[in-house]
Amino acid sequence: MKPTDMAKEGTETTEETEHMIETNGAKETETVVSAGDAKEMRAVILSGFGGLNKLRVTKKAMPEPQEGEVKIRVKACGLNFLDLMVRQGNIDSPPKTPLVPGFECSGIVEAMGENTKGFEIGDRVMAFVNYNAWAEVVCTPLDYVYNMPDDMTFPEAAAFSMNFVAAYMMLFEVANLREGMSVLVHSAGGGVGQAVAQLCSTIPSVTVFGTASSFKHEAIKDSVTHLFDRNIDYVQEVKKISPEGVDIVLDCLSGENTGKGLGLLRPLGTYILYGSSNMVTGETKSFFSLAKSWWQVEKVNPIKLYEENKVIAGFSLLNLLFKQGRCGQVKTVVEKLFSLYNQKKIKPVVDSLWALEEVKEAMQRIHDRGNIGKLILDVEKSPTPLMASDSTETSEAGEEEEEHEGDNDNKERMPFIQ
Amino acid sequence: MKPTDMAKEGTETTEETEHMIETNGAKETETVVSAGDAKEMRAVILSGFGGLNKLRVTKKAMPEPQEGEVKIRVKACGLNFLDLMVRQGNIDSPPKTPLVPGFECSGIVEAMGENTKGFEIGDRVMAFVNYNAWAEVVCTPLDYVYNMPDDMTFPEAAAFSMNFVAAYMMLFEVANLREGMSVLVHSAGGGVGQAVAQLCSTIPSVTVFGTASSFKHEAIKDSVTHLFDRNIDYVQEVKKISPEGVDIVLDCLSGENTGKGLGLLRPLGTYILYGSSNMVTGETKSFFSLAKSWWQVEKVNPIKLYEENKVIAGFSLLNLLFKQGRCGQVKTVVEKLFSLYNQKKIKPVVDSLWALEEVKEAMQRIHDRGNIGKLILDVEKSPTPLMASDSTETSEAGEEEEEHEGDNDNKERMPFIQ
Repeated sequence: MKPTDMAKEGTETTEETEHMIETNGAKETETVVSAGDAKEMRAVILSGFGGLNKLRVTKKAMPEPQEGEVKIRVKACGLNFLDLMVRQGNIDSPPKTPLVPGFECSGIVEAMGENTKGFEIGDRVMAFVNYNAWAEVVCTPLDYVYNMPDDMTFPEAAAFSMNFVAAYMMLFEVANLREGMSVLVHSAGGGVGQAVAQLCSTIPSVTVFGTASSFKHEAIKDSVTHLFDRNIDYVQEVKKISPEGVDIVLDCLSGENTGKGLGLLRPLGTYILYGSSNMVTGETKSFFSLAKSWWQVEKVNPIKLYEENKVIAGFSLLNLLFKQGRCGQVKTVVEKLFSLYNQKKIKPVVDSLWALEEVKEAMQRIHDRGNIGKLILDVEKSPTPLMASDSTETSEAGEEEEEHEGDNDNKERMPFIQ
Repeated sequence: MKPTDMAKEGTETTEETEHMIETNGAKETETVVSAGDAKEMRAVILSGFGGLNKLRVTKKAMPEPQEGEVKIRVKACGLNFLDLMVRQGNIDSPPKTPLVPGFECSGIVEAMGENTKGFEIGDRVMAFVNYNAWAEVVCTPLDYVYNMPDDMTFPEAAAFSMNFVAAYMMLFEVANLREGMSVLVHSAGGGVGQAVAQLCSTIPSVTVFGTASSFKHEAIKDSVTHLFDRNIDYVQEVKKISPEGVDIVLDCLSGENTGKGLGLLRPLGTYILYGSSNMVTGETKSFFSLAKSWWQVEKVNPIKLYEENKVIAGFSLLNLLFKQGRCGQVKTVVEKLFSLYNQKKIKPVVDSLWALEEVKEAMQRIHDRGNIGKLILDVEKSPTPLMASDSTETSEAGEEEEEHEGDNDNKERMPFIQ
């Protein structure tokens, strides 16, 4: 996207941006603000859709909780592939910019809206937010807030919410994972992939097939039964081991893989399309051309499903929560997951912690598929001194970034990896 | 279909028809044979694809069990909508005619193939057969044979196998029926419909929406929470009661209703296409033109499923059993169902018993949607004297039958209805 396309950025004032009016704009110098200012807070701002250069940390008016809302002093935020899609505007009905990205966080309850009960000030909580998570303070309806287990750290909670809830609902509510079944998951080293692997291990005799970049194999090999390099023909590899195919295919790749995934299903098997990481592989390509492929996916004939006894499903946790009002069902799932956590059967894998000011490097890392487990924005963390090889900080506004290819087998690991 | 299209009927000799050579053909006079003849048996023969006139009872060589097979003295056979489709040739890869129709029966074990164990002579069994069920004797691999509960009658067992296994697998293995969910089933008065309603009643607080011809409503109203006439706009009616839709839609109507069914799903809901009763509503239409519409069903975009959090599935029990080798899984389901039967939580609804010689009338009844529950061919039953209004017996071979419209609200009930 060319800078001219974003000429209006920072000048639009919409409902979504009402808190941003005073501090929004091109105040590049305000990237670090004292946390002691009671009326303002630090937040990551996406000034317009595009590359990493559209992100910066700035001051924003502190939100106050409305009736039914909980005000949370944020400690940690989750970073997801979806956030890269949002940054590119590559989602259905993208919201207006500028906006504060982020859909999940953990922190401490600081206040409640009027007539709002269910939490005490000081409660340690995990929360879903419909944008705005990447900030020092966030307000969200209490239906999206959950008391954390005592033993869970804030980074773990921020790594837990979206990935484990999505993995659990896909495996146990959309599909029906039972003893002896087999599961194929792509990006097995990512946040969802690791959650899927762990949840599969809670059921006896489940075989997990995973694809991941080769350099991750050593780190994740114990969590997955059969690991394949993400560039090989996984269909052939799976069939060598299990000629009849697998019971559940979880596909975050989208589009061109639907046919391959369906073809790998055993009778009564379930293919679940849950994401779209293919959409952002070319960081600098126009997201409109990518969005086109998004809609050009293979259609499915129900009669073929009938003849082959197959199931195809789509799963979007955010739509479920924020468009479809299924908070009650998600709450039940969170309770089950916290129980598994307390039994030490599952534990979120945190790849690395990043300061808000390091959001670009964090996004680049997820884009390059460098992570094993979840990337976390640690709100109280100070930025780590830049490494010589890092260049994103020097990007100018509107500048096209280099195209980064994934699968760097010798990916340099950041010093703050846990 | 014109008679000339069937000019070859009775003259083809294929592997499938090897037992038919001596007795097959136009020996119309042999429709009743003494059961005492050890080498021959009575069977319903479909001489070619087409109308009711393609069916007759004739003598056939008695089959003997191969290794791994069980020989069953048949007491009762189930009659399904699918059998009407087979008769019309309106299925994928139809087998060669002449053939003996029928996919399920109950009876007594009369012999076992060599080196075949697992049953005793005299065992009361329920069985699936890949064609050939509508006969006095049938042989089928022992994986498809199940010992019946002591209290179950032969007609009940023949009414049980396909309908309850299909209903159970759709509700509990393809979908994931749980407390508080809602289910929409079409043809609620039919065999599958009644099985679905009963299985839903085994789970607390399940709401069942059903469509059925109005004249059946009084008879089945206690089995279904909300009943609608099959000719009204059920989408509107369901939404009046449950604006958010339902969790599971079971659709045996096919094609044009897929979009309607998907539209009625709540988030995380499952649409299951399991059959095709629309295919045979015009009894005398060319089945080729019907087959065309079969393939012209609406395709489904996986991305739409993703955005709406929906699941679409196809279910074909026969393919699962006979093409996909899932006997083990079906056996587990049969065991669970027999347990529910023994606990008196489910009980097959038998609409009526028919002699083999009455197969045309039975088919007409299912075609006219006259039945409540299952139609059974009772192999030992003598034909009931014809009623004056019945005309199918007078059809000549090759004659086009009258077009019968369904939904005769004053459908005359046969005297042998249970």
